[in-house]
Formats: sequence, structure tokens, C-alpha cells
Amino acid sequence: MKNFKLTIEYDGTNYFGWQRQKDGSKDKFPTVQNVIEQAIRNIFGKTVNLTGSGRTDTGVHALGQTANFKVRTKLKCQEVKKAINAHLPEDVIVREVEEIPAGFHARYDAKSKWYRYTIMVNKKPRVFERNYIFFCPYKLDLKLMKKAAEVIEGEHDFSAVCKKKDKNSIRNVYEFKVIKKNDKVFFDINGNGFLYKMVRRLVGLIIEIGRGKIDLKDLHDVFLAKNNRTAIQTVPAKGLCLMQVFY
Amino acid sequence: MKNFKLTIEYDGTNYFGWQRQKDGSKDKFPTVQNVIEQAIRNIFGKTVNLTGSGRTDTGVHALGQTANFKVRTKLKCQEVKKAINAHLPEDVIVREVEEIPAGFHARYDAKSKWYRYTIMVNKKPRVFERNYIFFCPYKLDLKLMKKAAEVIEGEHDFSAVCKKKDKNSIRNVYEFKVIKKNDKVFFDINGNGFLYKMVRRLVGLIIEIGRGKIDLKDLHDVFLAKNNRTAIQTVPAKGLCLMQVFY
Repeated sequence: MKNFKLTIEYDGTNYFGWQRQKDGSKDKFPTVQNVIEQAIRNIFGKTVNLTGSGRTDTGVHALGQTANFKVRTKLKCQEVKKAINAHLPEDVIVREVEEIPAGFHARYDAKSKWYRYTIMVNKKPRVFERNYIFFCPYKLDLKLMKKAAEVIEGEHDFSAVCKKKDKNSIRNVYEFKVIKKNDKVFFDINGNGFLYKMVRRLVGLIIEIGRGKIDLKDLHDVFLAKNNRTAIQTVPAKGLCLMQVFY
Repeated sequence: MKNFKLTIEYDGTNYFGWQRQKDGSKDKFPTVQNVIEQAIRNIFGKTVNLTGSGRTDTGVHALGQTANFKVRTKLKCQEVKKAINAHLPEDVIVREVEEIPAGFHARYDAKSKWYRYTIMVNKKPRVFERNYIFFCPYKLDLKLMKKAAEVIEGEHDFSAVCKKKDKNSIRNVYEFKVIKKNDKVFFDINGNGFLYKMVRRLVGLIIEIGRGKIDLKDLHDVFLAKNNRTAIQTVPAKGLCLMQVFY
């Protein structure tokens, strides 16, 4: 039995996220996990369970999603990669296949993840980038936004920021950088885990601060849920991309 | 009567090129001219004729297509731009609207056009760029390709390179540059006019030279139709983009 680790790139525009949907609904609601498992089934003639590093939501993209699956085969990594790609639609590409020890688990062993959210200010993104960048028509104070990101770094209870209650809502944000490059602004966040919609809520929060709608000094209160949460916008999925999973 | 000049950006993936199709077929075969004329009709309540700088083929993109139309209105350029964009699908954007003298004609007055063809070598383009870049899996000799492009510069009869016979097949290529940037290669061509599929045939020709399938010293013979034309591949439309029209 071999254990293969995949590094996967996808355009999430036409997918209902990563996570497999129940049988029967897979044509109506295609997911990335579904199409890759189908490709693997076509090659090896049997159903395997592809374990992703975690879910990505509907419309979210990835340049470095990871997953693993086990199969009895004589095929080598390069052959597996070629075979899977031959069975995938063109908006999903397996970039790398590695054989890893039997014990490796793509979700449990993940140490941290790097997500990037991209916005465009001043002018609309080129048509070629319309599905990958959120156009933000407001005037933003970048200095304030960088400071806000710094405040968010570290271990916090993010339940007040996110909409859903989780059993354990404490997460550690190792790094959160706001980087301007011409008319684009990248929000690069690296953490040990993320609650549902957490990245998009945090980016929305920082944008509100950049617009002057929320005061930087009230940010701690937002975390403590002393502030009105309704001011935070969840930015659209299309600007979000899972860049890398660290092991 | 005002004469408006538009600068237009579009993702050609879902269009049957620029040129308007006959009435009745516009839903089946959407074209860029069709959707912009429809937007203008919605705003001004009447049918106008939008004159483009020239056609682009099915699947070809543009960052700087130009066109003009005449209408009696009190609206200013910025208002016209905003109104048209509000009526356009998201894969077509009007970037600029200028009021120009009544005599201006987007096609007759065009002095030259700059097209860019983009290929990717060594590795497949990112999924985000899959509709805009042609993946070329061959080993290419860049130096030879640059030299070939130089030979093509200047005034030539391109009838032997292109498939279709034209009444006048003499065109002047002012500049033709092959530029490598990481794993991408840009073919930047600026000329006074182009025959049907001419850019894609020339890029295909240069790639054949880069692969060693056609010898550089035979290039003149290709022009003179002394060589077998079947060796020239027409590269796919998706890699081609109309960058700018010069007046």
C-alpha cells in the first residue's frame, strides 16, 4: 500500500468548495474532492478516500491545497500525477505527487496554512483577473490596516469575529501581513487553523478599519464581542486563495 | 451629435469574436460588438452602429480594443462610461470614453496595432491563467526565435504564410519582439494591419523554428511560398490579445 501526497491547484469559481457532497448530488454540486476522487477511481478502478488538509468554501481558490490517499499500485509518483491530470477538468491541476510514510495524514499533520486574500483599489481588476480579485471601491488607510493586522497576530478567541460558534474557537495567527503592490493589496495570513469564514471576516474587519468605519483602538473590543459585530462585512470568496499548507 | 471613442477590455473566451452576428443569432453566438451595442441601445433607446478598429477572432482577448459611435446626447464621457459598464456582462469592460472630432473613424484612422501572444514553457500555466496562455510543451531555442522575428519585421507579402488569399496581402510589421520572462514567452507584434489568423500563424511559424522543425535560413522561402506550408501550426486563439490600437 502506498500513501500519496498531492499538491493541488484549483480555480474554485465553478465548485461548491473542496468537500465531497453526498452521492447523487455530485453532478449538481461539483466539488474539487469529488472530481479528484473520480479521477483516481478511473485510474485504479476503485473508490479511494482522498483526505484534504481541510475544506475550502464555495468559490475559494487554491494554489497549494494538499491531500493524501492510499492505494496498492506499482505506479510511480510521476505516473500517478500524469494519470490523474489526464482525468481532471482544466480548472483543477495536481502540481506534485510524493510518496510519503504510511502514517502521514493531510489534515492531522498540517502545522499551519497560508491564505492570501487579494483586493484591488482605485481601479477594477483586468477582466482576466475578475474571478480572483475583489474590487474594493473605498479609500483605504494602509498604515492603519497594517497595524490592525499586527493586533490580530497571536492567539485569540475568534468566536466574536466569526459568525458560527465552534467548540474550540481559539486559533493562533502566526503572521498577518498587509502588502500593497501597485493597485493590489494582499492580505497574507498564516495560522494553525481557521474557523468558518474567519479569513474573509478578518479581511472585512481590516477593510472597515482602513475605511475609518471601525476605530483601531476598538479592535480589542471587537475580539471581546463588546462591539457591534454587524459592522464587519464578509468579503467575497473569489478573492481568497489557499497558498500553502505547512507540515 | 457627439462622437465617442471607447477603449475596451474583454475576455474573449465566451465570445464568437468581436464582429456583430446577423440578427437572431446573437443569443446563440454572442459577440463583443453585439453586447456593447445592446448596452448602448439600452441607454439611449436607439440602435447605433459601433465601429471597431477591426475584428478579433473567436476566443481572442483584448486589453485595448477601440471603437467609436455617434449619438445625440447631453451625457458626458464619464457618465457614458459608467452607464455602458452598468449594462455590460463582467467579461467586457469599457476602460475609457473620449469625445473626439466628428470625422474620427476607429478603423480607417488606425495607424497600427499591437498584439501580444503569450505562451508558457516548462510548466503549465496556473489555473487562473489557463484561458489566456498557450502551454507549449517543446524545448525552444529562444535565440533562433528572436532572429526569426527580426526577419519577419518589415514589409512583406504574407499570403504564403496565411491560409486565406486576400486582395492585398502586403502588410508592414513595424516591430516583432520575442521576450522571455520566467516561464512565459511573449510575442509582441506591431503592424499596420493583419491578415486573417496572421499573428497566430506567424507565432506558430516561429515556434516551429524554435523547435528546429523549420530552419531559420528557410524562412525567406516560406514567405515566398517555396516551402511546404503545412508545417506551420496556427496556435490557439486563447493566447492572443489585442493590446493597443495606435492613431
